[in-house]
Amino acid sequence: MSAPYTLVLLRHGQSTWNQQNLFTGWVDVRLSEQGTTEAARAGVLLKDADLLPDVLHTSLLSRAIQTANLALEEADRMWIPVKRSWRLNERHYGGLQGLDKAATQAKFGQEQFMLWRRSYDTPPPVLDDSSEFSQAHDPRYADLGPDLPRTECLKDVVERMLPYWQSDIAPDLRAGKTVLVTAHGNSLRALVKHLDGISDADIAELNIPTGIPLVYQLGEDLMPLGPGQYLDPEAAAAGAAAVAAQGNKK
Amino acid sequence: MSAPYTLVLLRHGQSTWNQQNLFTGWVDVRLSEQGTTEAARAGVLLKDADLLPDVLHTSLLSRAIQTANLALEEADRMWIPVKRSWRLNERHYGGLQGLDKAATQAKFGQEQFMLWRRSYDTPPPVLDDSSEFSQAHDPRYADLGPDLPRTECLKDVVERMLPYWQSDIAPDLRAGKTVLVTAHGNSLRALVKHLDGISDADIAELNIPTGIPLVYQLGEDLMPLGPGQYLDPEAAAAGAAAVAAQGNKK
Repeated sequence: MSAPYTLVLLRHGQSTWNQQNLFTGWVDVRLSEQGTTEAARAGVLLKDADLLPDVLHTSLLSRAIQTANLALEEADRMWIPVKRSWRLNERHYGGLQGLDKAATQAKFGQEQFMLWRRSYDTPPPVLDDSSEFSQAHDPRYADLGPDLPRTECLKDVVERMLPYWQSDIAPDLRAGKTVLVTAHGNSLRALVKHLDGISDADIAELNIPTGIPLVYQLGEDLMPLGPGQYLDPEAAAAGAAAVAAQGNKK
Repeated sequence: MSAPYTLVLLRHGQSTWNQQNLFTGWVDVRLSEQGTTEAARAGVLLKDADLLPDVLHTSLLSRAIQTANLALEEADRMWIPVKRSWRLNERHYGGLQGLDKAATQAKFGQEQFMLWRRSYDTPPPVLDDSSEFSQAHDPRYADLGPDLPRTECLKDVVERMLPYWQSDIAPDLRAGKTVLVTAHGNSLRALVKHLDGISDADIAELNIPTGIPLVYQLGEDLMPLGPGQYLDPEAAAAGAAAVAAQGNKK
């Protein structure tokens, strides 16, 4: 098949911890009721735009998988092949996992808070394996062994996500398949950074809203032929602004 | 890994057409409300029995995929790898697809009705490609080309299911994985016929209830070390009797 190739990115709907304004990372929380509504609506948007995925890639986290299941149920594409990888997981938030965002900002100050949230290469403190929020004993990551992250900055996410883009997503695109990737705020920021050639500094300003499909047309080199398009641009702009404001939420 | 290997078979929960007593086959109907309850309960049964699947195989039909999604959500195993194949689909019911079971029995007589439903090698009439219940233009089967079934007897199902058992399910079992297969009344009857060495005549008497996990321990030759065990034997017996009586339901 020849270009253009079609790639659809979808950040999971609101989770119960998004709702409570907690740092989540690799903690495997589920969608909130609003999140399930967003996920189903994403499927309707795909169907209405006649953007029917031929193959699905998800993270290993339930909120991304639930989002894909609900969207594909609405789009009547439950039957497409699916592949899951930890490389599409959310950024591991280290010792911040399970902490309230507003309380963390109040305790450590806005500068440190924004450094952890948005700096490219400063990871939060390491999460201890004895924490109730650790994944050290989660069977889904047993194959990772000592490579299991205990904290990550966005640079770490780029470095573990891009190999999967090359090895697994790129071949599906080159085969002419419409590829749906359901993942997370930071694994999708890492991918968009690559696609749109965003600098290490400027990526701090990029926020991806939950539950709204973001569509790219890619050329032979699998780089975008134009800007990514949200299927509902107004809702996407409002959603991105809400993500940016999370630290300030009381 | 060495034996015993663990195989879990799960027939999808009640579908909207099971509920209406219609021949379904490859028509892609969804679960009824009762069916979603059954599917979730199957996940609870798996979790309570500590039978946590490592890998999932499903058909390409939404009711089997929904059942797997709901069961794995309850068992907290949404993240396991999944492979789907048309070879696990329900028997193609040919020209009976979409017809009422009781009306079909009344029209053609009990003998012809039971021949179509339970004889090993008598397929129903061929379904015309122009029928609203045909899959001739369904993109999920585009790769099958002229091999797309237009009707099937159980013998046909055995012949297209067993190659998948050998090529895809057997390697997962031999790797020591707990394998969950979510499929259909007749594709599972075909597999149980193979596993339990049931004759072409005796398979007519075997009915598999919806939504109750059936567990086999298999030896090195991937044949059962003992009879398959339903996780809820009382509900399974009642469910099997209900399946057997379907033709008589008014």
